[in-house]
Amino acid sequence: MVVSESWTMVRHFEGVPKPEDFKLIEKELPPLKYGEILLESEFWSVDPYMRPYSKRSLKEGDVIMGSQVARVVESKNVDFATGDYYVAQAGWTTYFISDGKDLRALPSEWPESLPRSLALGAVGMPGVTAYIGLQQICNPKAGEVLLVNSAAGAVGTIVGQIAKLKGCKVVGSAGSDEKVTYLKEIGFDEAFNYKTVNSLEEALKRASPEGYDCYFENVGGKFADVALQQMNSFGRIAVCGAISMYNDSVPQMGPYIHPYILFKQLRMEGFLIFHWEDKPLYKEAQKQLLEWILENKVKYHEHITHGFKNMPKGFIGMLNGENIGKAIIKA
Amino acid sequence: MVVSESWTMVRHFEGVPKPEDFKLIEKELPPLKYGEILLESEFWSVDPYMRPYSKRSLKEGDVIMGSQVARVVESKNVDFATGDYYVAQAGWTTYFISDGKDLRALPSEWPESLPRSLALGAVGMPGVTAYIGLQQICNPKAGEVLLVNSAAGAVGTIVGQIAKLKGCKVVGSAGSDEKVTYLKEIGFDEAFNYKTVNSLEEALKRASPEGYDCYFENVGGKFADVALQQMNSFGRIAVCGAISMYNDSVPQMGPYIHPYILFKQLRMEGFLIFHWEDKPLYKEAQKQLLEWILENKVKYHEHITHGFKNMPKGFIGMLNGENIGKAIIKA
Repeated sequence: MVVSESWTMVRHFEGVPKPEDFKLIEKELPPLKYGEILLESEFWSVDPYMRPYSKRSLKEGDVIMGSQVARVVESKNVDFATGDYYVAQAGWTTYFISDGKDLRALPSEWPESLPRSLALGAVGMPGVTAYIGLQQICNPKAGEVLLVNSAAGAVGTIVGQIAKLKGCKVVGSAGSDEKVTYLKEIGFDEAFNYKTVNSLEEALKRASPEGYDCYFENVGGKFADVALQQMNSFGRIAVCGAISMYNDSVPQMGPYIHPYILFKQLRMEGFLIFHWEDKPLYKEAQKQLLEWILENKVKYHEHITHGFKNMPKGFIGMLNGENIGKAIIKA
Repeated sequence: MVVSESWTMVRHFEGVPKPEDFKLIEKELPPLKYGEILLESEFWSVDPYMRPYSKRSLKEGDVIMGSQVARVVESKNVDFATGDYYVAQAGWTTYFISDGKDLRALPSEWPESLPRSLALGAVGMPGVTAYIGLQQICNPKAGEVLLVNSAAGAVGTIVGQIAKLKGCKVVGSAGSDEKVTYLKEIGFDEAFNYKTVNSLEEALKRASPEGYDCYFENVGGKFADVALQQMNSFGRIAVCGAISMYNDSVPQMGPYIHPYILFKQLRMEGFLIFHWEDKPLYKEAQKQLLEWILENKVKYHEHITHGFKNMPKGFIGMLNGENIGKAIIKA
């Protein structure tokens, strides 16, 4: 008999999630039926999307959504062997039963040199988000200038490095001097701490007096007001996140962006990776990212919180920007 | 000796342009040099873009920009024959001298049954804006729902009719009951007077409970706030104008649109026809529009102000929404 632990959302978050909004529950799992698999989570992902989606798709008391790398500990399904690892979408939970349909194999021939947690980060959802979002919306060309904010995050770090591989000048905004140092280490041409610059406008101008052709948006709100002013004509904006707005109870207001969109003929497009999960491009992206990582062309960093019991803390920390690179919870 | 009259902008507009912001000047034109052509304007176009562009590209005292249909009255250029008509970009002026490079011939074989003023409207810049903007950005498919605001204007009337030809359900918003009646006459499925509905949100929901796939934006501001909420996933928004914002001295504020763009994976793109003027698609669009008009598949309406002396009045009236279809000044 297996007892599974899960983190539930006690009440809908108001503003920044607080520890008391989460509750750990236990549940006995039934014996496996024919065709079923029992898995144990090894790594969990905490991601910004969980904040807005908690409101959109969770009821109070629900187990919080999310993905994990999990190991098959028992199998009554011939297609799944004990000891094998999969990426699952089982939420914040330690053990779970699956019929196998929602399990995604790790990219084949996973190299021993790399932690499997990368399947939740640089080679997983955030890395693929960076890869496909950049390609499909920004479509950056050599010599163009790309701006990415939340640049030291799981998506931003990969966006910047891919854009560098494509021959762009890359500018990143992040929330600490340590993050800025990291961004320069991994090849960003310019990076600044948006919390300490006197003026975001000046910081953006100094970083790229020639303006911006591509803008990979993870932040939204007032950052966007300033950035849009410095876009070049025919600029492309991939709206991949809006972390500055996720904790709002009342929508933030700003000047309408129509004049920028119109007179600069900008293209702004929202991007959700979920749309791409079943498409061939998703696997292509994973393959390419894995290759780049093994060639050391793309570097990764993980911010690991140890212990399932600390998962809410890791989530809140990620929303507060404590992580460099991918925020991961390790069992 | 020819005396040309021109309307100049005395001072930059504050809010809605006023009659005293305009001044009529006279100028003697010099004799033609070899290679030059003298033209007399027959019809002038007044368009919303003139309001924002007056600020962007005119100095106080300048002749106001704009296009006209003009007739060659004297030619020292073998390529241009007296009596022929051209579309020119000579501004608000009666007579002007050209070297021919900025003249655009009317679509060949202009039918006698159609007024030449259509070369400034349904077969000119606004019609082509509708055609290319719709095709390139909204790309509407049969069965989809399209929303256009300022729907009874020079661009909106054509947008709606093209979308109908493509098999869409078409919803239009306009500013008078007379306009609403006109929109229904030319085939709009639904139309409403945004000035008299109790709630724009309800009006949009009633017109299309199934939401909107395409949104041809001519208005901006608060209208957009409400419309964006009712877009379907993967909706396309062609930002072609923002007439509700052109007279602002202080930028209007509204809630940031990132959540809609992101979670609905919307694409929003600015469209300026100037970018397309030298491209083959421009002439293709004119040819197709002319054909549809002759086949009575696309209907047109002109709001004609008589007399060059009334041009400021015609312009102000157009900004105030007095026109159905294209606002034209006739000599």
